[in-house]
Amino acid sequence: MENPRFQPVRSYLVDLQNRVCGELERLDGRESFHSDRWERLGGGGGDTRGIAGEGVFEKGGVNFSHVLGDVLPPAATDSRHQLAGRPFLAMGVSTVVHPRSPYVPTAHMNVRFFTTDDDADEAAWWFGGGFDLTPYYPFEEDVVHWHRIARDALQPLGIDLYPRFKEWCDRYFFLPHRDEARGVGGIFFDDFSEGGFDHAFAVMRAVGDAFLPAYAPIVELRGKHPFGERERAFQLERRGRYVEFNLLHDRGTRFGLQSGGRTESILMSLPPLASWPNSPSPDPGSPEASLLREFLPVRDWLSGTQPKR
Amino acid sequence: MENPRFQPVRSYLVDLQNRVCGELERLDGRESFHSDRWERLGGGGGDTRGIAGEGVFEKGGVNFSHVLGDVLPPAATDSRHQLAGRPFLAMGVSTVVHPRSPYVPTAHMNVRFFTTDDDADEAAWWFGGGFDLTPYYPFEEDVVHWHRIARDALQPLGIDLYPRFKEWCDRYFFLPHRDEARGVGGIFFDDFSEGGFDHAFAVMRAVGDAFLPAYAPIVELRGKHPFGERERAFQLERRGRYVEFNLLHDRGTRFGLQSGGRTESILMSLPPLASWPNSPSPDPGSPEASLLREFLPVRDWLSGTQPKR
Repeated sequence: MENPRFQPVRSYLVDLQNRVCGELERLDGRESFHSDRWERLGGGGGDTRGIAGEGVFEKGGVNFSHVLGDVLPPAATDSRHQLAGRPFLAMGVSTVVHPRSPYVPTAHMNVRFFTTDDDADEAAWWFGGGFDLTPYYPFEEDVVHWHRIARDALQPLGIDLYPRFKEWCDRYFFLPHRDEARGVGGIFFDDFSEGGFDHAFAVMRAVGDAFLPAYAPIVELRGKHPFGERERAFQLERRGRYVEFNLLHDRGTRFGLQSGGRTESILMSLPPLASWPNSPSPDPGSPEASLLREFLPVRDWLSGTQPKR
Repeated sequence: MENPRFQPVRSYLVDLQNRVCGELERLDGRESFHSDRWERLGGGGGDTRGIAGEGVFEKGGVNFSHVLGDVLPPAATDSRHQLAGRPFLAMGVSTVVHPRSPYVPTAHMNVRFFTTDDDADEAAWWFGGGFDLTPYYPFEEDVVHWHRIARDALQPLGIDLYPRFKEWCDRYFFLPHRDEARGVGGIFFDDFSEGGFDHAFAVMRAVGDAFLPAYAPIVELRGKHPFGERERAFQLERRGRYVEFNLLHDRGTRFGLQSGGRTESILMSLPPLASWPNSPSPDPGSPEASLLREFLPVRDWLSGTQPKR
């Protein structure tokens, strides 16, 4: 299972975790990540890193995991059903940060690698990943920036990747019972082995590497915006939707719980505080209504912009 | 679908909703229920009643629904798989109340009736229901009272009902990913048509009627207990578990969302505010640890008591 060909994937992921933690600490301005290393009965383990306190991030997690399992759970793949039930290796880095300020969006990034084989044939390994943004009081230029960084990162690796992954993200981060998107999207891909191992690995790296340049400027720009009880209440209500998505729909969460993953690490994505008020529905014309009407419905955020040369 | 034989079920449920709302308003001491009547495209409708404010109950819902559907969703039955996909009628009352004080337990009660037929043969209709308690700072005598009322209500209808429904409740309200019960249980039954229609209906009524005598004295006894930030923080964290159970595991929630139910009514069970702190784990020896160690593991609460004669 520990084919040397997959060693660079592990090294990349470990380094990515360190880089993301370092930059988030810098943005936070106060707290440091606490590391919790764990081993898994049956093989593998991980490093769960959490941050919480009085800085910019009310709660955040950056988790590395490397899991060897006897039986690939069905939720691990959409397309390779013939592999369900086989021994597998899964590695990934997953980040969710919940800023305290309602003016700073919640962000999620995940990159992952799966294999059921040590022969490295294309049927038996694949990459996945993506990042998506969940603003509360959104700014159009922030959303455009977020998508532009995603598109420019993928452009050199295939002109069609951003549009495909953007559409996939819109489809994935959707709450059918609310008929509502989780946020303003970004990119999402899965079951990906196109172009062979080196190319698919490069796509995963491009996504992982683009997360901080996409997110950090938004945190820096919006982090100092004052807010009051009204904005906080709306943020908590929207965080309730985040909880609904993760527990009702998210495949990563279900895969984690099905594969006997570590509950505390898997559910680190849940917000520190969330609300389900009795009668939500914002006033028409309010900034809260604008999120629902103008930002959450699927949009082409880059229609007026040109890719970077 | 509207067999006159089932009319008394509807009348009972409508009356139960009124009685539960009336008594909860009395216990609340300040607020009244707000009623939201709705109709369902495709048939049926309901009356969603919510309470929220500055009284005893931070948030509560008592919902009646009466749904006619073309296709019975799989989550509606555990044992009658041959009926999945058939037209159906589902009626029920469902209550969840989240008190503000951590010393007052959250309570849930639900009674329901399903049929896929208007011929009233036993294969094609069944009852379900139960009530269960989720304390935060529990008192042994309250839990014994709760279970005693349940046992005494069921005793005249069958000596084995309480033990069976109590065990079923312990099994149902369990979070495998936390290896933890949702609360201290109560009773739960489903797919129930034993003894014919009149007997099975009487069992459902016994459960519905016992809810207020089981819950009201606990609210009255514990409602005035002072509490501080520590108790509130623990309550919010435990409410997070409540959310996890309802969204990850609860069949009623899944049935509701699958059958195109009203999302706001179905998710009214979610608490007004819940937290997922970064590093929970209460100190050994604390009252919070006692909940986890002494109250949540399955216990025979009535071992020292005798049934009412």
